[in-house]
Amino acid sequence: LTMIYFFKYLENLYLFVCLEFVEKHSFWCLLQTGDKILLYDTILEKFLYFKVKIISILMTINEKIAALRTKMKENRLDAYIIPSSDPHQSEYVAPHWKGREWISGFTGSAGLVIITADHAGLWTDSRYFLQAEKQLANSEMILHKQMVAHAPEHLQWLMDQVPPKGRLGCNGRLFSERQIQYLSNRLGEKDIRIDYHHQLINEIWKDRPALPLAPIFEHDVAYAGKSRMDKLAMIRVEMEKLHATHYVVSTLDDICWVLNIRGNDVEYNPVCICYLVIGLKEAHLFIDPKKVPAEVKNRLATDGVSLQPYLAIDFFLEALPEDTAVLIDKQSLNVNLYDAIPASQVIAGKNLIRPIKAIKNETEIKHIRNAMIKDGRALTKLYRWLEQTLSSRSVPEVEVAERLAAFRSEEADYFGESFAAIVGYNANGAIVHYRAEADSCAAIKPEGILLLDSGGQYLDGTTDITRTIALGTPTIEQKRHYTLVLKGHIALAAMRFPNTTMGAQLDAFARMYLWQDALNYGHGTGHGVGFFLNVHEPPQGFAASAVTSRGSTILQPGMLTSNEPGFYKSGAYGIRTENLVLCVADEENDYGEFLKFETLTLFPIDKSLIDIDLLSAGELEWLDRYHQQVCEVLSPVLDEESRQWIKEKCRPLG
Amino acid sequence: LTMIYFFKYLENLYLFVCLEFVEKHSFWCLLQTGDKILLYDTILEKFLYFKVKIISILMTINEKIAALRTKMKENRLDAYIIPSSDPHQSEYVAPHWKGREWISGFTGSAGLVIITADHAGLWTDSRYFLQAEKQLANSEMILHKQMVAHAPEHLQWLMDQVPPKGRLGCNGRLFSERQIQYLSNRLGEKDIRIDYHHQLINEIWKDRPALPLAPIFEHDVAYAGKSRMDKLAMIRVEMEKLHATHYVVSTLDDICWVLNIRGNDVEYNPVCICYLVIGLKEAHLFIDPKKVPAEVKNRLATDGVSLQPYLAIDFFLEALPEDTAVLIDKQSLNVNLYDAIPASQVIAGKNLIRPIKAIKNETEIKHIRNAMIKDGRALTKLYRWLEQTLSSRSVPEVEVAERLAAFRSEEADYFGESFAAIVGYNANGAIVHYRAEADSCAAIKPEGILLLDSGGQYLDGTTDITRTIALGTPTIEQKRHYTLVLKGHIALAAMRFPNTTMGAQLDAFARMYLWQDALNYGHGTGHGVGFFLNVHEPPQGFAASAVTSRGSTILQPGMLTSNEPGFYKSGAYGIRTENLVLCVADEENDYGEFLKFETLTLFPIDKSLIDIDLLSAGELEWLDRYHQQVCEVLSPVLDEESRQWIKEKCRPLG
Repeated sequence: LTMIYFFKYLENLYLFVCLEFVEKHSFWCLLQTGDKILLYDTILEKFLYFKVKIISILMTINEKIAALRTKMKENRLDAYIIPSSDPHQSEYVAPHWKGREWISGFTGSAGLVIITADHAGLWTDSRYFLQAEKQLANSEMILHKQMVAHAPEHLQWLMDQVPPKGRLGCNGRLFSERQIQYLSNRLGEKDIRIDYHHQLINEIWKDRPALPLAPIFEHDVAYAGKSRMDKLAMIRVEMEKLHATHYVVSTLDDICWVLNIRGNDVEYNPVCICYLVIGLKEAHLFIDPKKVPAEVKNRLATDGVSLQPYLAIDFFLEALPEDTAVLIDKQSLNVNLYDAIPASQVIAGKNLIRPIKAIKNETEIKHIRNAMIKDGRALTKLYRWLEQTLSSRSVPEVEVAERLAAFRSEEADYFGESFAAIVGYNANGAIVHYRAEADSCAAIKPEGILLLDSGGQYLDGTTDITRTIALGTPTIEQKRHYTLVLKGHIALAAMRFPNTTMGAQLDAFARMYLWQDALNYGHGTGHGVGFFLNVHEPPQGFAASAVTSRGSTILQPGMLTSNEPGFYKSGAYGIRTENLVLCVADEENDYGEFLKFETLTLFPIDKSLIDIDLLSAGELEWLDRYHQQVCEVLSPVLDEESRQWIKEKCRPLG
Repeated sequence: LTMIYFFKYLENLYLFVCLEFVEKHSFWCLLQTGDKILLYDTILEKFLYFKVKIISILMTINEKIAALRTKMKENRLDAYIIPSSDPHQSEYVAPHWKGREWISGFTGSAGLVIITADHAGLWTDSRYFLQAEKQLANSEMILHKQMVAHAPEHLQWLMDQVPPKGRLGCNGRLFSERQIQYLSNRLGEKDIRIDYHHQLINEIWKDRPALPLAPIFEHDVAYAGKSRMDKLAMIRVEMEKLHATHYVVSTLDDICWVLNIRGNDVEYNPVCICYLVIGLKEAHLFIDPKKVPAEVKNRLATDGVSLQPYLAIDFFLEALPEDTAVLIDKQSLNVNLYDAIPASQVIAGKNLIRPIKAIKNETEIKHIRNAMIKDGRALTKLYRWLEQTLSSRSVPEVEVAERLAAFRSEEADYFGESFAAIVGYNANGAIVHYRAEADSCAAIKPEGILLLDSGGQYLDGTTDITRTIALGTPTIEQKRHYTLVLKGHIALAAMRFPNTTMGAQLDAFARMYLWQDALNYGHGTGHGVGFFLNVHEPPQGFAASAVTSRGSTILQPGMLTSNEPGFYKSGAYGIRTENLVLCVADEENDYGEFLKFETLTLFPIDKSLIDIDLLSAGELEWLDRYHQQVCEVLSPVLDEESRQWIKEKCRPLG
């Protein structure tokens, strides 16, 4: 029996699938990658044979859970844990590693799934409660609401549910050595064993996307400021201090920074999927060779960097001679790779690259200044376009994001967005991680308040800026909240502090005026920013918690950090004012013992939302000086009308 | 051959020692405790026999070091380490445990000695460099200058000096389990073994002072606010949560707090040397029974607290039945006691008492307010006496301290000083841990600046206050520095903050105005304060470092903390303004989510040192309101002349 099914519509190609029908089983299950199918081409007007490559299989969430349980039973596991991470502990993961999303149907960025014989649970935090409830509605997966984001609240549940001497399974590649150690310690209290050598999701995920194949490219030293040989030399000096012969790097942005390469394997972060092992004379880059253009390969070879297949890293580490001493970072290296290195050869150290990368060099800083000018011009176009458009029609939130990306793309050396722009109109602005969707987003009208947080990736820098503007006449309350946020922003921007100060000591200066009104905001005040790299770049930041890297890292000249206090009135509006600030030595102080910030972001701060009576003379002076600088630097690169517009927006208040 | 030596002069008793002379050996070595000697009484005019009790033996430092080296050789130790601590990790230790002082001759409170076959070294920090150089001058002991106070800088030296597979010895009773673990980890890198079962100093220290024998007494529940039964019940609730059957407490102030007892075994801290083991029904106090009056013993017994000899703790822990689960705090329990508990019975937890003790109860707070009035009256007497005396003569710094202690002792329920008063005139004020000595201290004249930091122990509270006053006409620079310190003090005192805030987030508010002038001070901004207990009471505080308990503890209503920013111009003057502040819920905020401070200390802040132009309207208002309160509360308890004096000192500036 032969039947033809409608398959897919692609341009001029009508696709039908011609199959033999076997019993009542869904035909999807009959196709396998490599099968041949018959398609009908409407131009050629004939059937053609094509080779099947399965890119999606329709399985319900409950079917997936059932399939996993079968595998768990075969492996005698009482529970299986599926995190959101990848083998590199990345913030954004490639579709290849979105196993947690695949088995749960939940698409949020943070979350963790645990499956037992009679329970399937998703742990996520308050940002995602509504979304998770919707996405889990048609499956047996139960939402466990986390009180604190990223806290291991599932651990207690595991302790309660898994029987003594039970077995917990997971894929060790998705957990750092440190995480597994922590899990083992806790579960060990109840004699529960953790077996992290499974890949059960991969076994049942038939249509799992392949590893991304975007070609890598070099980040010219004219941008990077330091050659890869210079960078490798700096790392090797640190390695020798620790008597290490090899250093294993698994964090993608660190590898891209050292080698002056970039890629396009995940959203927003211009990185490529790879590992790097740095020896004292040579280095080995583990990456799919198809992604490396010949000329890049040659230049890497010239600099002593040889290519090896991505998955060869395990064998490479296992085969290292006995007299090698391998430096690793337990916090980021996944436990499978950790185990591949004989214990006697391991030097458990820290990330050597991060603290060097965090100090932007003179060339990088010069380029970042230029990226800020381009970003300011793109934002000028966007806000002018919005003003004009709103005079004739409402504008959906998503259109603002699309337009802004388009304006940024007109700038030289533009590569893409540095994260999904947050366009939050009125009440949506109060949802901190809001992402407008075309089918559900709000329509912006010439009234209320609009929060816009966005950033661009340019070859010469990564930007991140938030502005909140009034589209009509703001209320007294809105002006008070906006001004309190601004006062905090200025307090931090204008700080002078000793060169021993950590982020947790400065964070509260951005909050103190809100605190005086018994108000606060639920996120940190700032994060490190990469140079044409990740917009969230550890280690430094401004955070209330002193146990995080963002709170406990001592600020140093050359560090680029966001300054982004906010205030969110639930159901009403959100306010945030964000600039990037560069930490610099304070020239008035001869000894270099005091530091300050230089604000690099260039765009006016909406004055119509300011309650001028709440600003001190010093704050007014800061604001007017900032606007004078924005006007002076942006004006020469704007057309006449935009120049008039920016001049008006930058007119002094004082 | 019989000879008579001059021995000692005591009131009307001329003492001569009548001895047989043996060779040329110093006669001190011939005497032993129990020997009989012949003394001449000038009243009775005849010789009498007395029994010898040796209380001091003259040995040079080099002789002591040599004696230790002999013992080290016998025990095959390559190095021996002698810390400043006692078995309870106390801040102030009884003479019985001042072995580091005995072997080095260095009397500073912080320091550590390491002896090897060819080197004797003392590690201490910059506060003590001058003192240590003087005190080590006539011995082979070498001063190692520490860059950072309390940092384990001697470890690297040990790593360099002790050969691989070498052996380091120490007395484990003076080290916490955590400290030994840390030492072992580091030294293990070079295969150096640490053997902590020695007491070599005790073996060679023939005239070692006995354990103190001061009687203990009860701290009435009318002061404490909670009975020992209530306190034990609270601790037992926490123990049961952790499934502990016993809880070993070795920190003296925690024991005194739980049992509502006090003692007089060390300087300044009204504690007694003891251990406590709390069971679920009963408790065991390990203390010299001679120190416990019969009625206290009986009342302890009634509350289920039995007495055992101090040194019986080891046997008690070793003999605990197998089914017990013993909660300990690795950070404070000494490693010998830790080892006494079978590993399978140990629950490594945290100090359960400290967080409860830190929250002062309503009764305690009521009493603290009263102690502040008494302290204010004593200080009024002192400063008036100083003013009057300086009009006719100069006053040595030590006399100020003595007079102040005398004025405090006139107050009801006075027990003693809470620490050695710091009286720092002009340049001496810039030495942060300065202690005036009768033979070397400065003479105060009616000019310059005087810093006075002092505190009292009363049955109803522990005080700690610093004031800096001008004795003549201050310079413009002095006024600027004083006012910047005051602005920081006010900023912290007037903070409103969420109930999730830790000390490290607030510390910088006391520094920010100094920072703006590129100035700073080298100590924390505040420490917790006990209730008729230690003036330095963990856990909370205001500290720049977020890794310390003072920086990382979240502030809660009921916590009493010092607010003491300062500025020190080396060789010129020191400035510090210190009040104790109580953390309270902010009543203006309905949800209890915000907290603030109430300043409890009552004494005027010298206005003659203020540059009024540097104060904001809010700061002026704070100062005038504070002075109004000081005047209102102190006036009723002062005599007429003092009342006029305080009224003048509290006259508003605004």
